[in-house]
Amino acid sequence: MLITIIGTGNVANALGNAFIEAGHIIAQVYGRKKESAKKLAIKLNSEETDNLEKLKLGSDVYLFCVSDDAIEKVADKILLKKIFCVHTSGAMQMNVLNKFMQYGVLYPLQTISTKRKLNFKDIPVCIETSDKNAEKKLKNLAMSISENIHHISSEQKLYLHLAAVFANNFTNNLYSDAANLLEDHKLSFRFLHPLILETALKAIEADPRKVQTGPAVRFDRNTIKKHLQLLEIYPDLKKSYQLLTKQIQQKNKN
Amino acid sequence: MLITIIGTGNVANALGNAFIEAGHIIAQVYGRKKESAKKLAIKLNSEETDNLEKLKLGSDVYLFCVSDDAIEKVADKILLKKIFCVHTSGAMQMNVLNKFMQYGVLYPLQTISTKRKLNFKDIPVCIETSDKNAEKKLKNLAMSISENIHHISSEQKLYLHLAAVFANNFTNNLYSDAANLLEDHKLSFRFLHPLILETALKAIEADPRKVQTGPAVRFDRNTIKKHLQLLEIYPDLKKSYQLLTKQIQQKNKN
Repeated sequence: MLITIIGTGNVANALGNAFIEAGHIIAQVYGRKKESAKKLAIKLNSEETDNLEKLKLGSDVYLFCVSDDAIEKVADKILLKKIFCVHTSGAMQMNVLNKFMQYGVLYPLQTISTKRKLNFKDIPVCIETSDKNAEKKLKNLAMSISENIHHISSEQKLYLHLAAVFANNFTNNLYSDAANLLEDHKLSFRFLHPLILETALKAIEADPRKVQTGPAVRFDRNTIKKHLQLLEIYPDLKKSYQLLTKQIQQKNKN
Repeated sequence: MLITIIGTGNVANALGNAFIEAGHIIAQVYGRKKESAKKLAIKLNSEETDNLEKLKLGSDVYLFCVSDDAIEKVADKILLKKIFCVHTSGAMQMNVLNKFMQYGVLYPLQTISTKRKLNFKDIPVCIETSDKNAEKKLKNLAMSISENIHHISSEQKLYLHLAAVFANNFTNNLYSDAANLLEDHKLSFRFLHPLILETALKAIEADPRKVQTGPAVRFDRNTIKKHLQLLEIYPDLKKSYQLLTKQIQQKNKN
């Protein structure tokens, strides 16, 4: 397929690479900043533009990889109408693109950073389309990079995205807290590596609701008290410790 | 070595198995309940007792695998004095065992459930001992199951344990939240498996403080507003969403 990529961030980089590897051709890369567009275009063996009015006709898909707030603004500035536009956002409705002849969503449920190479094969790719013909095209595109494709409505997608915030964003924030705490006491974050990996594997292989461990679920008051004393000088950590401990206990009080 | 195991829970099971596999002999297993003691003793090719006064002399190490609150109570009831007692708690001081001739701590920094087989080789095992001779014995024992041994003071250990609560207990609780949220909307938790694994690998291979993604770190108000609307009927999740979003933003406000 011929694909136009709109955006130059983490998602544009990761999907662009995946599409190239799957044998597609990136016809054009749009970036607000000429330099960023050029950089990605070179990587993807494509050409760049920083002018949405200069997007060329002829691509099978125009893929929006821009921030949620930018999707509508970018769509407004595109003069072409008879094209197939697809965004990649977990939080935005598909209909935000309904000014185009065909439209859809391709949402890869994964945390994407430019620096980390991702294998899309196992990543759930959620798709939604305006019509059957668009569905066929988008499904083919998705299947060329992943074996884990799902038809998902915009509403369901919003719940997936919200659950992903808990499972990734908030989790990573707790890892950061742990890293700061250890660093302050001259202990390496490496101590936690095997624990972090095992925590993830356990949640995947079992059900996280059945494998909760630690002082909260044991209602171990003395240990919780000791921890809260250590956290006296970390008011933010103390707040999250108290809230999450209380929530674990409420879930397990019977 | 000859080892006596005191306790029959997750840690007793996991360490007992690891010691057997490393070629040690479990001389005796103590459990408050005769049945549990017998069950573990059979698994470990050992004999059981439910009477602390009947612990036999002769083991190189008496390993306490009981809950934090029980360590002192159990120690009080043991009549033997000239033995080497070691507890496995992350939160308790070593000195809680100072009525014995030799004492120490062997703290495996990992989440341990009876049902999951663990390979101890990479697990950080933190040790602390009352004297040089005890150190030599405990180090040998620890090295027989892990290649990741650390001499750690009781104070440092407490910070490791606290950091582990953030990295495991609280993280797993967020996975549970995500699982509940998906279940309520007829979506499988399997959608999150690749994300959960990648989140862990990313934190291990990079620094979690440098790979935060999501609406909070992007200060994406519209998405955060949408998520909070969805969480109106989940008051607990709303509280943790608000607190953790605020904390991510405070960490990244510059």
